[in-house]
Amino acid sequence: MATGAAARALALSIETLNSNVIRARYAVRSEVAARATVLAKRLADGDKTLPFKSVISCNIGNPQAVHSQKPLTYIRQVLAMCMYPDLVSCGIFPTDAVNRARSLLDAMPGGIGAYSNSQGHERVRADIASFLTNRDGLPTSIDEIYCTKGASEAVRMTLECLIRDGTDGVLVPVPQYPLYSSTLTVLGGQTIGYFLNERDQWSQSRAELTRAYDEASKLGANIRALVLINPGNPTGQVLDRLTIEATIRFCDERNMVLMADEVYADNVYDPDCEFVSCRRVAQEIGSNVQIVSYNSVSKGFIGECGLRGGYMHLWNFPSDVMEQFTKLASMSLCSNTVGQIAMALHLRPPVEGDESYPVYAAERQSVIDSLRRRAVRMSEALNKLDGMSCTLIQGAMYAFPRIRLPAGAVDEAKARNIAPDEFYVRELLEQTGIVCVAGSGFLQEHGTYHFRITILPPEDQIDEVVERLTNFHKQFLARFP
Amino acid sequence: MATGAAARALALSIETLNSNVIRARYAVRSEVAARATVLAKRLADGDKTLPFKSVISCNIGNPQAVHSQKPLTYIRQVLAMCMYPDLVSCGIFPTDAVNRARSLLDAMPGGIGAYSNSQGHERVRADIASFLTNRDGLPTSIDEIYCTKGASEAVRMTLECLIRDGTDGVLVPVPQYPLYSSTLTVLGGQTIGYFLNERDQWSQSRAELTRAYDEASKLGANIRALVLINPGNPTGQVLDRLTIEATIRFCDERNMVLMADEVYADNVYDPDCEFVSCRRVAQEIGSNVQIVSYNSVSKGFIGECGLRGGYMHLWNFPSDVMEQFTKLASMSLCSNTVGQIAMALHLRPPVEGDESYPVYAAERQSVIDSLRRRAVRMSEALNKLDGMSCTLIQGAMYAFPRIRLPAGAVDEAKARNIAPDEFYVRELLEQTGIVCVAGSGFLQEHGTYHFRITILPPEDQIDEVVERLTNFHKQFLARFP
Repeated sequence: MATGAAARALALSIETLNSNVIRARYAVRSEVAARATVLAKRLADGDKTLPFKSVISCNIGNPQAVHSQKPLTYIRQVLAMCMYPDLVSCGIFPTDAVNRARSLLDAMPGGIGAYSNSQGHERVRADIASFLTNRDGLPTSIDEIYCTKGASEAVRMTLECLIRDGTDGVLVPVPQYPLYSSTLTVLGGQTIGYFLNERDQWSQSRAELTRAYDEASKLGANIRALVLINPGNPTGQVLDRLTIEATIRFCDERNMVLMADEVYADNVYDPDCEFVSCRRVAQEIGSNVQIVSYNSVSKGFIGECGLRGGYMHLWNFPSDVMEQFTKLASMSLCSNTVGQIAMALHLRPPVEGDESYPVYAAERQSVIDSLRRRAVRMSEALNKLDGMSCTLIQGAMYAFPRIRLPAGAVDEAKARNIAPDEFYVRELLEQTGIVCVAGSGFLQEHGTYHFRITILPPEDQIDEVVERLTNFHKQFLARFP
Repeated sequence: MATGAAARALALSIETLNSNVIRARYAVRSEVAARATVLAKRLADGDKTLPFKSVISCNIGNPQAVHSQKPLTYIRQVLAMCMYPDLVSCGIFPTDAVNRARSLLDAMPGGIGAYSNSQGHERVRADIASFLTNRDGLPTSIDEIYCTKGASEAVRMTLECLIRDGTDGVLVPVPQYPLYSSTLTVLGGQTIGYFLNERDQWSQSRAELTRAYDEASKLGANIRALVLINPGNPTGQVLDRLTIEATIRFCDERNMVLMADEVYADNVYDPDCEFVSCRRVAQEIGSNVQIVSYNSVSKGFIGECGLRGGYMHLWNFPSDVMEQFTKLASMSLCSNTVGQIAMALHLRPPVEGDESYPVYAAERQSVIDSLRRRAVRMSEALNKLDGMSCTLIQGAMYAFPRIRLPAGAVDEAKARNIAPDEFYVRELLEQTGIVCVAGSGFLQEHGTYHFRITILPPEDQIDEVVERLTNFHKQFLARFP
């Protein structure tokens, strides 16, 4: 800056920046993640002074980044042809992939380089609608579907319509994925936590929903919606039909929108569990609750995080409300067409008899089987450690173990002015190179400590992760007896 | 919905939806655009009753949608290889494109299917930074760059940091691109218009900036930033160095952030005009104004709207402020990697000697030459019409002609409760199939009427557009003498 700059107040300084933005916390990419980047760079630059040889990112559900998951061949082949249509006739791709690319290109005048309809290409939404029709046994219109930049943008648009001022709030599970609390904070709304019961596989109860609702209402909150994350992030539970039914009735009685985060629907590992959509349950019990459900190409067995494809489905909303969602969507023109197509391919994949089917089916099975093995391996390993316990990972991509921290460690954290589990994960990174997220970033019951660790490192690295973590944990306990 | 739904208030109805969202207007994709979709569908379904045979979209800068512009071969080849890395060795692409894809894939562990850094891949930001360093003659750090979903998301993030409550406002040119006013409305901030002078090629004056600033300040507004759109959208002017200098000094004196919308930097057609960046001028005059500048892959000669790539560059912001931008970026994880790479390829294209260069250079020149011819053709045609005048289209992608509407037409519009130029463009659509946007959607001087029409239809259709428009205009004037 030129001389004199320091003498004058800046137009935009931290003192004059929107305090809602400053107050928002998004722990998944916090200081620990930033510090990990620095350490990884030092290793890459040949630094031999660190007590580990590699940084292992277990902080974020980003499967392709950690080389544990390759993109599905069919999806990438069709997308490559949409990207460069000359490839359609180059003779190197399976017939069904070629036909799918042709049909997509025919349906998209201008190709993938043109803006689509603000809600997404009609052909893409037709594939999504048809998937939802089959899944829920209910007709689904393409007008109810909004393609978005992952699920995050969809959640944001929903909250933007709901939150009018500081008295409006949303019921959010604790622990939760911090997108909810951080977006609510930026928009100036209230995050009202309802606790999941860790002792009972992170279950949710009507009594607890009622407590949370009533306490916040008494303090003047106007509670507009309830967030349900199924399968749970970070908690890994898969909700049963009865729990979903009770939650829907609760929303019905109190006139709340149900925000159904179902992005991990394909990530169910426990053979005793089955994913059931909120909408299916709602229609079965004759509820007309308003549901916004979310999906993403980043999770499931597709794991295409970088393509930023997602959608929301609005059910039981009147057309004048839908028009407002459409206007919000139009303000950023449309979501990216590549992510849109990836979603269509994911929800209408090759079927038996298609040339691509055998490879597609084998790849899909291999991803799911491997995730299942890693889920078991990780929870077993964590449960073996003194002072650590982890519920069964029924679904999603994470373990969320509880750690019983020694009083000395809690005091040390206090002295450093950070949460005790934040202290734990920082030390874990510095000693082992493993990157996790502290439970405090997801909200948790007062006095309990957790961390979230993904089950995504490749299987041959999972043992390494477990070993580093075990050694660290023992030393940590020994350090604070 | 199940029986009884109507008897009860909905959880989210138009009455209980955030009124800031309801008040926002985004005319570029408004009723006229929706009506055009309906008409196009009727034509496609064989309806012979309409007075035109095709809908011609001139409402949005979406070049690939109207087949006037093909994607650049080099960009799509590299992207196809990034999408499906086996193509790197298939022997059908030029060596330099193959090498570029290899080098990008090497730099992106996990490929394009992994989330990148929240600000964008380091390699992508390195290419952007190096472009900015050369363009402005100033060192540029990758830490100052945020890759975003087009420029829209970047503008939104900036305003989110700036707007704290209803007293905060931003100076916006009139006419403006409605993203600014609509986003300000959604965020609850004030849009404070400063008028561009149509008689003088939509120039902006210090006197007018002062008037706008002082009047709003007196009413209690806290003016935090000034938006400058150069080349102008919808107005097509290219600002000269002196105007930019005066605007920077104005921001300096009043301690405002300068929001520099420079997405049309490559779209300059008038040989007497040259694009100069705000940052370059600022450093030449020794200003330390805070600048956020915006760029996009949707415009220029690349026109990759569907890929949703863009970035903002923050200059002279302290690190604690940048951290807040980074947190906002991290809340939606990252922008899509395909759009990021497209931006890198656009800003570091093939150079002389590369195998791809001749085709790349020819394609680029052909797009620019064609746009230049269409800009001239469109403004000449519009100026020939009675009661219509259009300034020279120096840059960007639009004509914004002024129409002098007969009193009868103004009365008729009032009777229909719509703006007079909205009436004009609706009639234009119904009679001719041409889709434009009314000037009222961009804000305009009281009592003046305009519409925005893109110069993007292919050259062989431009004559058709001009003919339909000319016939319509004559009939319209005859209808309201």
